[in-house]
Amino acid sequence: MTSDQLFEQIRIKKSFLCIGLDTDLSKIPQHILASEDPIFEFNKAIIDATADLIVAVKPNLAFYEVHGAAGWNSLSKTVKYIRNKYPKLFIIADAKRGDITSTAKMYARTFFQSIDCDAITISPYMGKDSVEPFFGYKNKWVILLALTSNQSFSDFQMIENRVTGKRIFEEVVEKSSQWGNPDNTMYVVGATRAELFADIRKVAPNHFLLVPGVGEQGGSLLDVARFGMNSKCGLLVNSSRGIIYADSTEKFADGARNKAFQLQQEMQQILQTAGLLS
Amino acid sequence: MTSDQLFEQIRIKKSFLCIGLDTDLSKIPQHILASEDPIFEFNKAIIDATADLIVAVKPNLAFYEVHGAAGWNSLSKTVKYIRNKYPKLFIIADAKRGDITSTAKMYARTFFQSIDCDAITISPYMGKDSVEPFFGYKNKWVILLALTSNQSFSDFQMIENRVTGKRIFEEVVEKSSQWGNPDNTMYVVGATRAELFADIRKVAPNHFLLVPGVGEQGGSLLDVARFGMNSKCGLLVNSSRGIIYADSTEKFADGARNKAFQLQQEMQQILQTAGLLS
Repeated sequence: MTSDQLFEQIRIKKSFLCIGLDTDLSKIPQHILASEDPIFEFNKAIIDATADLIVAVKPNLAFYEVHGAAGWNSLSKTVKYIRNKYPKLFIIADAKRGDITSTAKMYARTFFQSIDCDAITISPYMGKDSVEPFFGYKNKWVILLALTSNQSFSDFQMIENRVTGKRIFEEVVEKSSQWGNPDNTMYVVGATRAELFADIRKVAPNHFLLVPGVGEQGGSLLDVARFGMNSKCGLLVNSSRGIIYADSTEKFADGARNKAFQLQQEMQQILQTAGLLS
Repeated sequence: MTSDQLFEQIRIKKSFLCIGLDTDLSKIPQHILASEDPIFEFNKAIIDATADLIVAVKPNLAFYEVHGAAGWNSLSKTVKYIRNKYPKLFIIADAKRGDITSTAKMYARTFFQSIDCDAITISPYMGKDSVEPFFGYKNKWVILLALTSNQSFSDFQMIENRVTGKRIFEEVVEKSSQWGNPDNTMYVVGATRAELFADIRKVAPNHFLLVPGVGEQGGSLLDVARFGMNSKCGLLVNSSRGIIYADSTEKFADGARNKAFQLQQEMQQILQTAGLLS
């Protein structure tokens, strides 16, 4: 998918919502556990209930790997299901990999070929040659960690470079924007860092940002939009547990839809106000 | 395994060698491809041929994930095989994960419980709360990326902190050595960075270092030992392709053993000279 196609979907859906599939057997409704592949059944129901309200889906790899081979099957089935039934949904493997060239090539093959995702999240710590192999796939995306939503983000991301005066997250965005372009690179920027979105936009005005941390982690959607939105929206705002565990009964899918609908309505308002829906 | 137990193994084996299982179907001998699980069969043969010469084994997750569920089965079988037959070998999941607390907990469960590894490699980019969940498992280890062996390591790792004057890799080692201790934390330091081992040792004199980059990537074992060894050895030197693909015929296991033996002999000499074998 290109950035223009993604923006087109945002305009059609009037939403820049991404649902995080952090599917946890200890949190999904009891009655689903009896099915042959509870993780897949849960994901399927969530996607079916929300597909018209969202533009992206983000399975969090940790929640699949913990079940070993069975988990990979659930992941693979989920991605296939989405690909077939909702081909315009943007699928993000939230894998946070990052390794040397030969290994990065393997990860690219895994997530772009074996499992047909659109994008993978990558940690930038090892630099350019751990990122470039992912650019070998047309219309596939690298989403680099820049400014994360967790409490200890500042341990390293906020350190200021003695020579350039830039902070590490700015170094990451500035350097990597030279490696790729706004059609194959996005950045993870936590919603809890709204005041820093403006600094990100100085170095990456045209890139899409994947924004976790709205909801459970306390980030504000309005602030994110105010400081982070660009002329092609440029935002994918993710909510995981806030949506998928909104209701723990047999009506969990309705609960998820209600929660996603609330966010979509807020997003529609924001897009309208920004003049991006006309 | 504790650091004392690891050092004991090093003294018994007269070796601080780790074999990297970057097992690639396009590189393993043709005749193995006919078996039901070629990756497992290959790994088994390599381990059986070298187990008396090595102290650690490092499966590189990318090479398993690329085969989806089947790959996870191969990995899981490999780890189980090692655990049963060679219980004193230290098993490192080279996974380079790194995510927020709740996700990190899942990764810890995956690699320390579902798959019974001793250690996992972690990227430090997200800071303390992405590392701490791994410390909840007794005698299990986090191996943090500090100074990697790839060409573009300096993109971010060598940036100097304006306030402290320290480089990012030093910040990582110094800060994280406060989160854990030398019995649950190691650092990845590339063999190609021998001149910087002394700087690492200033902040982490007692930690074990996992050292990739000897062989194919051009690092010198003697230099690594000269600058990086401490009174409990403190080094696990990894070789992957240089050992496992030393011979591509039906005698591949002998080829791997010969190559591992050469390295073990060099290591024995180094340990002897350092007075660590008496």
